[in-house]
This record gives sequence, C-alpha cells and structure tokens, in this order.
Amino acid sequence: MKKVILTTQTPKGTRDFLPEEMVKRNFVVNKIKKAFEKYGFDPLETPAIEYLEVLTGKYGEDGEKLIYKFQDMGGRSIALRYDLTVPLCRVVAANPQLPLPFKRYQLEKVWRYDKPGKGRYREFWQCDVDIVGSSKIISDAEIVSLIVEVLKGLKFNDFVVKINNRKLLNGLLQSFEIEKEKANAVLRAIDKIGKKSVEEIKEELSQAGLTFGTIEKLVELMLEDLGTEQALDKIKPLAEKSEEGKEGFEEVKELFSYLKQAQNDAYCKFDLKLVRGLDYYTGSIFEAVVESPQGGSIAGGGRYDDLIGLFTG
Amino acid sequence: MKKVILTTQTPKGTRDFLPEEMVKRNFVVNKIKKAFEKYGFDPLETPAIEYLEVLTGKYGEDGEKLIYKFQDMGGRSIALRYDLTVPLCRVVAANPQLPLPFKRYQLEKVWRYDKPGKGRYREFWQCDVDIVGSSKIISDAEIVSLIVEVLKGLKFNDFVVKINNRKLLNGLLQSFEIEKEKANAVLRAIDKIGKKSVEEIKEELSQAGLTFGTIEKLVELMLEDLGTEQALDKIKPLAEKSEEGKEGFEEVKELFSYLKQAQNDAYCKFDLKLVRGLDYYTGSIFEAVVESPQGGSIAGGGRYDDLIGLFTG
Repeated sequence: MKKVILTTQTPKGTRDFLPEEMVKRNFVVNKIKKAFEKYGFDPLETPAIEYLEVLTGKYGEDGEKLIYKFQDMGGRSIALRYDLTVPLCRVVAANPQLPLPFKRYQLEKVWRYDKPGKGRYREFWQCDVDIVGSSKIISDAEIVSLIVEVLKGLKFNDFVVKINNRKLLNGLLQSFEIEKEKANAVLRAIDKIGKKSVEEIKEELSQAGLTFGTIEKLVELMLEDLGTEQALDKIKPLAEKSEEGKEGFEEVKELFSYLKQAQNDAYCKFDLKLVRGLDYYTGSIFEAVVESPQGGSIAGGGRYDDLIGLFTG
Repeated sequence: MKKVILTTQTPKGTRDFLPEEMVKRNFVVNKIKKAFEKYGFDPLETPAIEYLEVLTGKYGEDGEKLIYKFQDMGGRSIALRYDLTVPLCRVVAANPQLPLPFKRYQLEKVWRYDKPGKGRYREFWQCDVDIVGSSKIISDAEIVSLIVEVLKGLKFNDFVVKINNRKLLNGLLQSFEIEKEKANAVLRAIDKIGKKSVEEIKEELSQAGLTFGTIEKLVELMLEDLGTEQALDKIKPLAEKSEEGKEGFEEVKELFSYLKQAQNDAYCKFDLKLVRGLDYYTGSIFEAVVESPQGGSIAGGGRYDDLIGLFTG
C-alpha cells in the first residue's frame, strides 16, 4: 500500500467516544433504557437519513435552518435526522396496525447543521420517550414521573421539572387582549426570560406590537416567583376568561394531582414562562432543569397533537 | 398547522425497526456485546459521517464505488461511514496515548450506496471487534474463538469458521510461478469459487494471464475438499518454496494449535479458497459460515497491518 498521510480529524462538530467516555456513557444510557422499559415503553429505531420533505416545515423557522441536508448520488434531497419526534410520527402514520396508545422509546443520534461551539455538536444523541394516541393527562404525568425517576436514578439531587401548558398560555394572552397574529412573537419573547435581560424582553414585546401597559403587566406576571399552588391561584381568574385558558388551567391542575399521587410533585414546579416548542406543543409543556453539578436544561417535552396528522391528512 | 399529506417512506435501502423486531435484535446485540466484554474488549463510537478523504482508497475498486458520499452545506466532501475498520484506524492514529494492544468493539450503523435488493440495504449494522498493536497469532486465535463463542451462544448449531492466510496464498502463487502483477486478478478469481461456476473461474484465470496448465493445477488444488490436517500436509511442500509461503503456513499451524487448546478447532476449518479483503488483509483471514437455519456468511475478518500506517505515515 502506498504511504499517504491522511487527516485523522472527524468532521466539524462531531467527535469520537473513546472507551473511557463510552463506559460512563453506557452506564447512563443503560439506566435510562431500564427506566423506559420499567414504565412499559418499547424500543424503536428509524434510519439516520430521511427524505428531506419528511422533515421540512416541522421545526419552525430557526429549526429549519439547522436541518443537515444534502443531495444523494441519485440527486434526491436527503437529510440527516434532525430529531426523533418527526420520524416517530412518520412511523405511526405508516403503520396503522400499531395498537394505540403506542408507547415507544428511541435512543439514537441526531444531526444539526449548527455552528459548533463549546458543548454544541453537529452530531449528538437524543433519548426520547413518547406516548402516541392518548388524550389523557395521566399520560403526561407518566412522562413527567419517568423524567423524575431517571434523574433520581442518576443521582441528581438538585433538579426541578418545570411545567406549563400551551392552552393556558394562549388563554392568558387572550385575557390580555393580545391578538392572535401577535401571539407567536409574544410567546417567543416570553421564552427568552432568564436568557436575556428584562429590558431586552420588554423591547422584543414592544416590537411584537404590545402596548407599554400590557408589557408591564405581562412581564410582572411572568417574573413573579411563586410556588405552584400560589401561582395557580393567582392565574386562575385570568385563565377563566377564555375557554382555552380554562381548559389549560384544568389540565395543569389535573397533571399536578397525578404527580402528587405518585409523590413526584416535590420535584415539579408550575412555571408560566415555559414555552419551548412553539410550533408543535399543544398542551402540557415540561422541562427538567438541573442546578448541580452544572446548571442547565437536561430534558424537555410536551404534548403535540398535530404532528402525526401532517402524514395522515 | 396546515394539513399536508407527506410521504411516510424511508429513503431507498433503509427501514424502520418496529418494537417486535427491535426486541429480537436487542436480544442478539446484547449477547454479542456481553461476549465482547467477556473477552476484554472496550466500547468505542465514532461519528456516522467522516471526511471523504479518510475513506477513499481503502476499500478497493468495487468498495470505493459504494461509498455514500455527498457535499455538506459548506461544500465539504463528506461520506457516511462505510465500515468501522477505517474509523478505528483513524482513531488509533489520532490517539497515540492509547495503550497497546488496543482491544475495542464497536456496534454501529454503516452505509453503502448500493442497489438495494432482497436482503441488501443502504443502511445496516456492523458489530466489529479488533485488536490493534499485537503481532501475535494468539490475537487472531482470540478473535476466532470469540466468533465461535458468539455463534454458539446464539444457538447456531451448524456453522464453521473457515480460515486461511494471505502470506500462504501469496507463497502459493509464487510456487506456481505466477507473476506479482497477476496476483490480485488471480486471487480475485479464486475468491469467487463457489459463487461462480468452475468454467467461469477458469475463464477469469485465463484472462488474468495464466497458462492452461497452471489454471488446471491451481483450480484442482483449490477445489479439493480435505480436512484441516490433511489439507495443510498437502500444501506444505508448495508453501515451503518461498519465505512468505513458509511464514503463512507456520501462522496457520500456530493459529490452529491455539484453537485446539481453546477446544474451538472442531468449529474451524482451513480453507485455501478464502481470500476476501484483497486490499487490506495481510495475514490470517477468517469467515464464519452458517448452514442452518439459512446458509450464508455471518462473520468475517482477518489481519490487516498496513491500514493504520496510512494515517500515521
């Protein structure tokens, strides 16, 4: 063989996992897998590549830009899988024989054509768990309890699962008489609270077309740091001003009642600022945040009712 | 959300694994993983994508055509991983701190831009196990024994691990006075014995430039179905005509002596026709073939000494 010195680098934003790291990762992954199976979820795997059209239009404006897409040698538009949610919806639409509710877990790589930076990769793992075909709030409680169990099992001792509801948020905006056309921009601004300064948030809300008075009242409400019970009591009269708000409020109440029964409510907290998946969450929204050993979001999710419909019409 | 009916198909040559199949696959994969770990191999993972230049020139003419390559959005030439061997060599070259011998296993997806047909996929799994940095034949025996243990553990009861040696093959061709320039074409033809008719093989050898007399003698030797001991006895005088042949012969003898000690020799058989990785195998070559429940090759491997050097110079 000819001697040629070749690059030993991996593509930008990707990395090798040497045994030392792998052993630690496998320990964590196995714990997660076992918890998923204990809760009755079944394994699923889908291809790393998808037809581009399967992924487009699902991840919102910002997500869309990050789809890692290319043309294959036959000229077809292909993408590396962006997440595990859209492939799940495709699988459910393609397999009407699957008994519902379909409880599946999937631990696989996903790709984003992002600017790689510290702790930001183009290739990384997601561990997903979903219940398809259940409209019951107890299913949301099941997922939140599973998150709590996994984090406890991994010996995190300082975490909280923040909980909110999209219907409640929509109802709240209605109570402030914010027009539907402005809702997405307003929610996008609210979701940045904590990441951007209050001044910047207010500026963004102003650009979304809200009046000074509305901004002040809305931001004050969002910034108040109350316990779950107190926060829900305070929000109740505003939520009840609309059908949607009322429904969302009842859903949050019901979710917390199940979490209390499961003795997981101490790890959970109602948080009105939580928006996240603006383009797909339709009900409960949750996000687990760890304080130590390192602060940050560690798991997130929510109810999305419309995604499968895109495949089945 | 707008209602749009989308394809629910996966890209050509790829497929979903629904829970029913996944449970069976996980059973098999876990058995394999456990055997790998029992033999002291450590886990490794590498990115699904590699720079194209890392992969080119490693898989021979036919393999090269099957590399699943594309341009990323930054115009870089990228390929989906073709196998797990070249990434391993890249990792070893990039990490001189790794203690040798480096025993690693890797169970991950690979991609080939092949014409998908029955049982042939563009995306599929490989389960690799390698020992890097040992020139000892006992390392080859370790791998062969591991294959035997895995297949026994999976309750295959009718399999054989065919064993050959590249040096022995080279020596043999020398004993037939076949010129070096013709060697690759001759070995490529030999490797097709059993897949093509004897007439076709002879025709291919003739096109490789062998005389009628050489072809007849060579094919007769290759077609003889003898037990390991008898076959080795028969080949010995031919092998000893060259240094390389002699060395290869001794390596096969040594390998079988270890397999006997491990009581795995009953599952193994010396097979002079086995060539396989023409472009990279430099010593021992092996391939496990299962007769039932379905005939076919189920595992293969061999010693490749030159591949890492391509990365380190």
